[in-house]
Amino acid sequence: MRVLVPDLPAFHALAQPGDTHLPGTELAFYSNKAGVPAGEAGGAVLWLANAATRDALLAVPGLKWVLTLTAGIDHMRGQLPAGVRLYNAHRLHDRAVAVHVVAGMLAACRGFHRFRDAQARGEWLSKPIPQSGLHTLDGQKVVLWGYGHIGRQVEAMLQPFGAKIHGLTSRTEPDLVDYRLAEADWVVLLLPSTEKTRGVLNAGRLATLKPGVWISNQGRGDLIVTDDLLAALDSGQVGGAVLDVTDPEPLPPGHRLWKRENVIVTPHIASTTTDLQERGAVYARSVILDLLQGREPEGEVGLSDAY
Amino acid sequence: MRVLVPDLPAFHALAQPGDTHLPGTELAFYSNKAGVPAGEAGGAVLWLANAATRDALLAVPGLKWVLTLTAGIDHMRGQLPAGVRLYNAHRLHDRAVAVHVVAGMLAACRGFHRFRDAQARGEWLSKPIPQSGLHTLDGQKVVLWGYGHIGRQVEAMLQPFGAKIHGLTSRTEPDLVDYRLAEADWVVLLLPSTEKTRGVLNAGRLATLKPGVWISNQGRGDLIVTDDLLAALDSGQVGGAVLDVTDPEPLPPGHRLWKRENVIVTPHIASTTTDLQERGAVYARSVILDLLQGREPEGEVGLSDAY
Repeated sequence: MRVLVPDLPAFHALAQPGDTHLPGTELAFYSNKAGVPAGEAGGAVLWLANAATRDALLAVPGLKWVLTLTAGIDHMRGQLPAGVRLYNAHRLHDRAVAVHVVAGMLAACRGFHRFRDAQARGEWLSKPIPQSGLHTLDGQKVVLWGYGHIGRQVEAMLQPFGAKIHGLTSRTEPDLVDYRLAEADWVVLLLPSTEKTRGVLNAGRLATLKPGVWISNQGRGDLIVTDDLLAALDSGQVGGAVLDVTDPEPLPPGHRLWKRENVIVTPHIASTTTDLQERGAVYARSVILDLLQGREPEGEVGLSDAY
Repeated sequence: MRVLVPDLPAFHALAQPGDTHLPGTELAFYSNKAGVPAGEAGGAVLWLANAATRDALLAVPGLKWVLTLTAGIDHMRGQLPAGVRLYNAHRLHDRAVAVHVVAGMLAACRGFHRFRDAQARGEWLSKPIPQSGLHTLDGQKVVLWGYGHIGRQVEAMLQPFGAKIHGLTSRTEPDLVDYRLAEADWVVLLLPSTEKTRGVLNAGRLATLKPGVWISNQGRGDLIVTDDLLAALDSGQVGGAVLDVTDPEPLPPGHRLWKRENVIVTPHIASTTTDLQERGAVYARSVILDLLQGREPEGEVGLSDAY
């Protein structure tokens, strides 16, 4: 089988003798710069590709399957040719994202953002205890809005911290969604971006939340109406936010979200680890081996809107 | 029984009717400003007192016991009159400190300090994945140097993150101490400050650690020789540090530790929560009730050097 893969060292390693050798496969390497090599290919591993590269990959003759090494599949909606199977790679990302979610919540509770700002000023920030704004997660009600692979890991990681966790899925009754969100101390967005989820956190919803609630968005930037969030931060209705994704994204210099003490921004790196490319290549190898050996790999996705 | 307590609203509440009423006790209130009221007292609850106030409290006629609402007892060494029992309040602090330890480790792994600095510049910090410096705690070897009430909670909280945790106590064989420290990715200091522990993390010890190791100090500032740590940060021997306690403390403006990207400083607030004074008063109440009713309260401490 001929497979198109990203032109990265970790994928070249699959063609070399050694622990990660991938037998029975001819690898062909593409990049945004050099483009997609000519010829038929049975499969393509899609990663770090821009729209033009993606389109060129999907137009390759003989294509039977695409493995996108992302968790999200927004970039594939309406793009996939008929008869081509799509696999995603949530397992490659779930764990780091879950760790990132919990890291952001704990760092916020313990004031690390304020202390970092004080450190930049060389200031030992000493406040009376009742005004410290510091707490733990004990007894905090945390709603995981979007409760799939990531949500379940977040739940397991939060357990020892004494938080009370509720997951919401697309099958949760609307009344219960309203009830859980209204009592939450933390609302963690883990939703995909679909027609149904875009703008779910808008002025109307924000007004129903508990005053002082914290928001964590690790799904997609457009789940939140940014201007509405800023207004809710202004009024104090929202206590703060931890955002790994934003709308617009990347956040341009001078944007109002940058300037808020109680907004903590990370640049869409929740799933990044230094060894992600190596892990990605190893993951792609396991999927290709499954396909070669007639096993159905994990992660086939239908392009529905469910979550 | 007459008991001296801090002049804080949460302690005045103990004298009022209600859920936290403390029967059978005459409370007398002291403060650093107004001093210690005259007269005999059977016990004293020591908190937020400066050295002069502490000395005045310990000189009160009739004193049988002192409850210090701290976890550390450095301030009591060599001070306690003969025949006066001392209780500490580790339970009041353990949990928040453990949460703070884990929050600092996770925030460091996920680069929150660097992203906060970038946020101050209005910069969406985008780096190639292999240079991201981001990771999780999976497989990381974490040594808890000092393994008591806090250490055990840190261990439970770290478990779901896949870290490999080893606790060291004063009873751990020296060879094993050396071995565990040499292989650690994280060294977390949870030791008290005693003659035996001051300066344990000095140039000699730092040189034996794994290059790139991260240090977390939530014990006492003088466990680390600050100049030696700075040199090890300079050479890259130490990858970074999360410090809630420092030497000197407070860290003065302009100190070199403030200016390092890979040093994360919080101002000795690991055990602080907004409701700490209320929790402290409730804790003191339970100890006083035990003493009134002839039960031995938790937390009597001998002034030895063990940990």
